[in-house]
Amino acid sequence: MQEIRQPGSYHYAFSRYVEPVARVKPGETVAIYTQDAFESQITRATDQPSAILGPYLNPQTGPIFVESAEPGDTLIVQIVDIEPTRDWAVSALIPYFGGLTSTRFTKTLQESLPERVWIYKLHDGWLTHSLRLSFPWRPFLGTMATAPDLEAISALTPFDQGGNMDVPDTKPGNTLYLPVRVPGAYFFTGDCHAGQGDGELCGVALEITAKATLKFDLIKQKPLNAPRIESPDAYMAVGSARPMEDAARIAYSELIAWLVEMGWDQWEAYQALTQIGGLSVGNMVDTTYSLVAKIAKEYAHRSS
Amino acid sequence: MQEIRQPGSYHYAFSRYVEPVARVKPGETVAIYTQDAFESQITRATDQPSAILGPYLNPQTGPIFVESAEPGDTLIVQIVDIEPTRDWAVSALIPYFGGLTSTRFTKTLQESLPERVWIYKLHDGWLTHSLRLSFPWRPFLGTMATAPDLEAISALTPFDQGGNMDVPDTKPGNTLYLPVRVPGAYFFTGDCHAGQGDGELCGVALEITAKATLKFDLIKQKPLNAPRIESPDAYMAVGSARPMEDAARIAYSELIAWLVEMGWDQWEAYQALTQIGGLSVGNMVDTTYSLVAKIAKEYAHRSS
Amino acid sequence: MQEIRQPGSYHYAFSRYVEPVARVKPGETVAIYTQDAFESQITRATDQPSAILGPYLNPQTGPIFVESAEPGDTLIVQIVDIEPTRDWAVSALIPYFGGLTSTRFTKTLQESLPERVWIYKLHDGWLTHSLRLSFPWRPFLGTMATAPDLEAISALTPFDQGGNMDVPDTKPGNTLYLPVRVPGAYFFTGDCHAGQGDGELCGVALEITAKATLKFDLIKQKPLNAPRIESPDAYMAVGSARPMEDAARIAYSELIAWLVEMGWDQWEAYQALTQIGGLSVGNMVDTTYSLVAKIAKEYAHRSS
Amino acid sequence: MQEIRQPGSYHYAFSRYVEPVARVKPGETVAIYTQDAFESQITRATDQPSAILGPYLNPQTGPIFVESAEPGDTLIVQIVDIEPTRDWAVSALIPYFGGLTSTRFTKTLQESLPERVWIYKLHDGWLTHSLRLSFPWRPFLGTMATAPDLEAISALTPFDQGGNMDVPDTKPGNTLYLPVRVPGAYFFTGDCHAGQGDGELCGVALEITAKATLKFDLIKQKPLNAPRIESPDAYMAVGSARPMEDAARIAYSELIAWLVEMGWDQWEAYQALTQIGGLSVGNMVDTTYSLVAKIAKEYAHRSS
Repeated sequence: MQEIRQPGSYHYAFSRYVEPVARVKPGETVAIYTQDAFESQITRATDQPSAILGPYLNPQTGPIFVESAEPGDTLIVQIVDIEPTRDWAVSALIPYFGGLTSTRFTKTLQESLPERVWIYKLHDGWLTHSLRLSFPWRPFLGTMATAPDLEAISALTPFDQGGNMDVPDTKPGNTLYLPVRVPGAYFFTGDCHAGQGDGELCGVALEITAKATLKFDLIKQKPLNAPRIESPDAYMAVGSARPMEDAARIAYSELIAWLVEMGWDQWEAYQALTQIGGLSVGNMVDTTYSLVAKIAKEYAHRSS
Repeated sequence: MQEIRQPGSYHYAFSRYVEPVARVKPGETVAIYTQDAFESQITRATDQPSAILGPYLNPQTGPIFVESAEPGDTLIVQIVDIEPTRDWAVSALIPYFGGLTSTRFTKTLQESLPERVWIYKLHDGWLTHSLRLSFPWRPFLGTMATAPDLEAISALTPFDQGGNMDVPDTKPGNTLYLPVRVPGAYFFTGDCHAGQGDGELCGVALEITAKATLKFDLIKQKPLNAPRIESPDAYMAVGSARPMEDAARIAYSELIAWLVEMGWDQWEAYQALTQIGGLSVGNMVDTTYSLVAKIAKEYAHRSS
Repeated sequence: MQEIRQPGSYHYAFSRYVEPVARVKPGETVAIYTQDAFESQITRATDQPSAILGPYLNPQTGPIFVESAEPGDTLIVQIVDIEPTRDWAVSALIPYFGGLTSTRFTKTLQESLPERVWIYKLHDGWLTHSLRLSFPWRPFLGTMATAPDLEAISALTPFDQGGNMDVPDTKPGNTLYLPVRVPGAYFFTGDCHAGQGDGELCGVALEITAKATLKFDLIKQKPLNAPRIESPDAYMAVGSARPMEDAARIAYSELIAWLVEMGWDQWEAYQALTQIGGLSVGNMVDTTYSLVAKIAKEYAHRSS
Repeated sequence: MQEIRQPGSYHYAFSRYVEPVARVKPGETVAIYTQDAFESQITRATDQPSAILGPYLNPQTGPIFVESAEPGDTLIVQIVDIEPTRDWAVSALIPYFGGLTSTRFTKTLQESLPERVWIYKLHDGWLTHSLRLSFPWRPFLGTMATAPDLEAISALTPFDQGGNMDVPDTKPGNTLYLPVRVPGAYFFTGDCHAGQGDGELCGVALEITAKATLKFDLIKQKPLNAPRIESPDAYMAVGSARPMEDAARIAYSELIAWLVEMGWDQWEAYQALTQIGGLSVGNMVDTTYSLVAKIAKEYAHRSS
């Protein structure tokens, strides 16, 4: 199995303007090694993030060139496995970043919250900082994206090709579908979270380095408007936007589009999701907010 | 057990300016009969909601005067049971109302979506309109509120004393905590949903008439800033605001306040909710949006 | 000329549930005395607002019963004159209130901004606190509303019947049009500002007590969806909502509706406002934000 | 005077990843020729925009390399003159784009508005489509930006380095200040508007090709957080974000920062802008909304 490590310096944007670090074939399974969101610079409870961190965050491994991928295709990324590559994770309060603070967008004249660092030991399937702060190992990849055709997008941003979505559903056992917009797709990933609550409230989950086993495939000539996720039991779509209600609208609209592709009438799908749809908040802290709309396959697969 | 029915015409606002229809004592369990959101005026698939409905929607049973309740107290409402009082539920598309249409707030020049009515038969624990549109009986009270001190609030509005929150967590087995702002609390309820997905996407859940068995109690001199919910397994807080991110901020802030009351350090609570908190969307369609932040008791009860 | 003073205690809500303090006839001009937003409790630079102010702010004079006003009519309020009734105005920083601070809606864990009080002397047409802080007398009524049919709305709230809009266009020489929703209209006013910038940034303008000379009239059977304003040179409509883009949408939609009533084609009006419309921010600090859309009469009156 | 024309194909992103088309020296005045937002493809009232336009809009002339510009500098762009290079302008309704329609962000299930094209003749200082639709020549450059260090940003987007702000204040006689983030600044401009109302309501102003005379200069080692504008009479700052209130917060925050640089106390500046600040809406239609906060020099220059 091909093992992909970032050679030299990391990328901090989803960009077609950089050289691929590896090539994969449709159907191929590879192991990808990812850095944590701070490039492993924060290691101790006494570290002060604002003094350590540079302007770039969330280093990505990639781009990975997917052979025969063309604009208008859908890239299938099956998340086979995620293993930690170290035995600790880190979370932190970073000035003017997070869900319960003013930010560079929601700008106020207030002082920032205090800086804090929490180090968690990974042992026996639990991440433990203290008696109270101890959480199960529930890993997922916070960031996965294909490169835009026109733009290069900061790795901190969730957008319609994936990105820093921070939705816990991109986890082992699930499959992510992303639109391809450039030849070769230019896939990036990083930002493994050892676990995270809905919303990623303080802005920093349980950040860890990891080895992710991903299987790539393609659906030819199948354009998507937003990322989709499939679990063994459910279909999901991700909306990323501000304000948060726009993320909800995008997520549910894309899920309706998916149901229509499966043969549903649009109004019937709108009705079904009203009564049985799920809608959860991935992140309420990033450049755009990401919400996940969901329907159980048990309902989606019913005949009309 | 006292049975409370709305005598004569219904109320369409949470208001201290109307006469109580019943009085309950702290510790008392009562049965309350509720109308559906359309006052049972929509009964057939061929009905045209815009031609039938008047300016007022979501009729409430109440106000119910809770003896010895005073401003600054917390009203405890234990949801013991909800039974249907008819064997059908109704959903509908109403012009310029819902999650995937422009509205009187998000105003555009576009035509409205088509009007539609779906009638569901309740049988054997399922609400069934068709093979595809068939959903389990998962009842909850969409609307519960105490009266404001100063204002009278439309029964369509979720606010800091509850209201039309449309969060599926106000269901049998759970307990709702509401701030008391006027002597006697003036409790209202209505809008039973036989089931609903997250967000109440099209704006109309499975609307049904019901008999709700509620037990009332008080915590004296305990003011709340937002509704709280307790299930056997979790603590929750509800935020209602626009844009949706403000609802998320309020919900998580109130849950942090609750954890601090339980002895948590504020930053520890902020951190814990980042890693293990839940955040779900009750409604994305009402006058304000309602989100529910949650922490499992398993985590909340840990000693530091 | 009838002089209207609030007898006894003030009202802090736009409410049909209180007794009118005066009656006016269509065509009648009256003088109304208004309190400042703090009921004149903050008088010195050393005052601490949070220690002085109670739960209710923005006292209103009213309700004023307009004879023969019926639901579905439009109330015309011509602002003839505004005179100060004292020689000083006050502004202040109030904890968790304002445009560049977190608030009870945009909730964060940050400390509040410092409290401050600025007292301005009114002399020779200028309000002067210091060399730097000295501004011309540009009075307007921050708050004017009719009472809702169903609700009672806090006097701090802007809404579709006016309210605490804080738009500087409700000034002498201009005319405000408000929907009537209850018999007698139940008009309220207060919150005179000796001057204010766009947005009312810190949340508190140059607050002053005043004598406002208003002339009332009616357009029978003419329902409005939002407040409208006419100046000698322009037509305006006010939108109040959150997020702010919804306020913009409402304001421009209502102005298009007005142009259509004048004989414009809807798409022509949409196009004209794109090229020559004005859109200014009244308040970015209140319960909802208020924006004013505008078109010069010079353009509105052109024949097609 | 150097004349700069885009050689060959246009750029549709603010990008450091493309070759400069010209070099200018600090202090140099140049003439830049710009395309219209549709690359002059829409020319007749009968054209159907959705059938004609490709995926890329808003072609930019650039990048222009400013000699000796380094990251951390401020680029000064003095707008000396704007002349039309043709005698007509165009506006249009484009499906799911504009202020009073659902969009790809504010997604609904509604039909789009009808497509429309308006052609205006430029004559004697007026743009004229019909008796009603005739507006004065008030040209400005809708789009001006420097290139980001990390990202490449679609030319349709306003952001903290300028971009598609669509604020009418970037007009002859005024000066724009932009942060430099890459060596040479990489300046782009385009999207001349022959005139526009506040908000650019339908999404398309009076689009025209133009010759813009700009004078470039630098302030060394002066980083900016947002674009600033200086007119003969006023200081302004531009905020671009969603929701719109965040754009307002950024604009006023940056203007306070500017006043503090001029020697003001922060709270005094907050107070002054409350009473005398201006806040107008540039666009309510683009990827982010742009608002302009303003203070007259008459007030800004007062000594304390």
